[in-house]
Amino acid sequence: MGEIIKGKPVADAITESVIREVEEIKSRGISPKLAIVRVGADPSDLAYERGAIKRMEKCGIDKEVIALPVDISQDEFIKELKKVNDDENVHGILVFRPMPEHLDEDIIKYVISPEKDVDCFSPVNVAKVTEGDETGFPPATPTAVMEIMKFYGVDLKGKHAVVIGRSLVVGKPVSMLLLKEHATVTICHSRTQDLPGMCRTADVLVAAVGKAKLVDDTYVKEGAVVLDVGINMDEDNNMCGDVDFDKCIEKASMITPVPAGVGSVTTSVLAKHVVKACRILNDI
Amino acid sequence: MGEIIKGKPVADAITESVIREVEEIKSRGISPKLAIVRVGADPSDLAYERGAIKRMEKCGIDKEVIALPVDISQDEFIKELKKVNDDENVHGILVFRPMPEHLDEDIIKYVISPEKDVDCFSPVNVAKVTEGDETGFPPATPTAVMEIMKFYGVDLKGKHAVVIGRSLVVGKPVSMLLLKEHATVTICHSRTQDLPGMCRTADVLVAAVGKAKLVDDTYVKEGAVVLDVGINMDEDNNMCGDVDFDKCIEKASMITPVPAGVGSVTTSVLAKHVVKACRILNDI
Repeated sequence: MGEIIKGKPVADAITESVIREVEEIKSRGISPKLAIVRVGADPSDLAYERGAIKRMEKCGIDKEVIALPVDISQDEFIKELKKVNDDENVHGILVFRPMPEHLDEDIIKYVISPEKDVDCFSPVNVAKVTEGDETGFPPATPTAVMEIMKFYGVDLKGKHAVVIGRSLVVGKPVSMLLLKEHATVTICHSRTQDLPGMCRTADVLVAAVGKAKLVDDTYVKEGAVVLDVGINMDEDNNMCGDVDFDKCIEKASMITPVPAGVGSVTTSVLAKHVVKACRILNDI
Repeated sequence: MGEIIKGKPVADAITESVIREVEEIKSRGISPKLAIVRVGADPSDLAYERGAIKRMEKCGIDKEVIALPVDISQDEFIKELKKVNDDENVHGILVFRPMPEHLDEDIIKYVISPEKDVDCFSPVNVAKVTEGDETGFPPATPTAVMEIMKFYGVDLKGKHAVVIGRSLVVGKPVSMLLLKEHATVTICHSRTQDLPGMCRTADVLVAAVGKAKLVDDTYVKEGAVVLDVGINMDEDNNMCGDVDFDKCIEKASMITPVPAGVGSVTTSVLAKHVVKACRILNDI
């Protein structure tokens, strides 16, 4: 029977440390601030926004929501984004994605200031994560995965980590972060032959595929650490992950639940990134 | 007994296709041009430069070598690089790396124009390769690996590719390119536990580790395709790869030699990239 490794203690620890850092920074007369740029009012954006705002308040980080109309033009949007880029009081910027289709993310991603881009929208940060450059900002979710393993003392050196999913928001960056911790990393996806067999070779299994309960006990090696990044709804409309928790907990040595797992760590990562951005921008 | 898959036929085929493209572009009054920026006179830089110049001549691509003194200052270097960036007649820029230590590559990489950066020095191209964005320029060597597999009809979909090496010039980009072709990709390195065992699970094995003849027959599954990116000297001072060719050829279904393997394809990739850059820059 594996240990259930919840996100809250991790988020609490990060928050505690951020609170102390924010106090120290404020003593220098600087007040760390996050700007959230939202187009329209997608319910999941709003839910995440509420969580982020609560976390920033807890950390003593200032926040501002720039809520823009869903039909804003590309030019207007870019103008708004540049305003936040140029605002000296703003240290971190979170832009909700995916954006409405008429806005071209492939252009906008070059506009956001890389130094304020706390959730890895800018290609500069994508490159830094690939390069293993620690001045960059990996996306919040893969960073949350790494924070959880650090908190619970999962040793990654030389271990075999298997990632299911090759997205730019989770699969690829988490692979780069795992590699930086000296894990051997395998990236699987929809085309992988014998996915369960491949996953059974994993000491650490990260599921980021977006399919409810895809990963059952045939995917898990005895004693593996299982991290579930998925957020799905099951047939009874209950939130569930990519992992069939009940089936996998017997074999796993540690396993994150959904909800209350990886997802609950992301806003504290965001807060940590705002502080990091604030330090770099102010050279402190 | 595996098939020896040499680089020359691949390079020849790419060159033929580039020659036709260059003719077509020249008929529009545009002449594709590569600028090689070299600091000092490192023998291996000079050797590659000769090969690149020969290839460009064969392809009908103009070339210019900007040879700079080894003690050039960072500011002077950047001034020179910007000149080439701004030169409308130049479509591709190759900067030899590693640069002398007093030049900060982490600053210079942001200076080179991403549109002309045919060997993936710019973070914009690092990001594009990670994103799978085909407007980017992956480095020449990993691209050569992919061209060889394409030429010899290696089907990658769903296959397990194992890469030994996690460098930014080969290991990481080739992993991203393999992933784009729908291979399942494992990245191994010096900390990997049971490296031979991990490699024996590979349908396609890419060795990019820089250790002479590290990969012997205990690393190779019967029927695997073996690509050797290494360029080393053995105890008798003969050029050899990361793969012990004689030991591995019995088990492999296909194997690249060293020399005459991956290395002989890189300059034709460079030529192909110059043409691609020329097309993008001129919107043709």
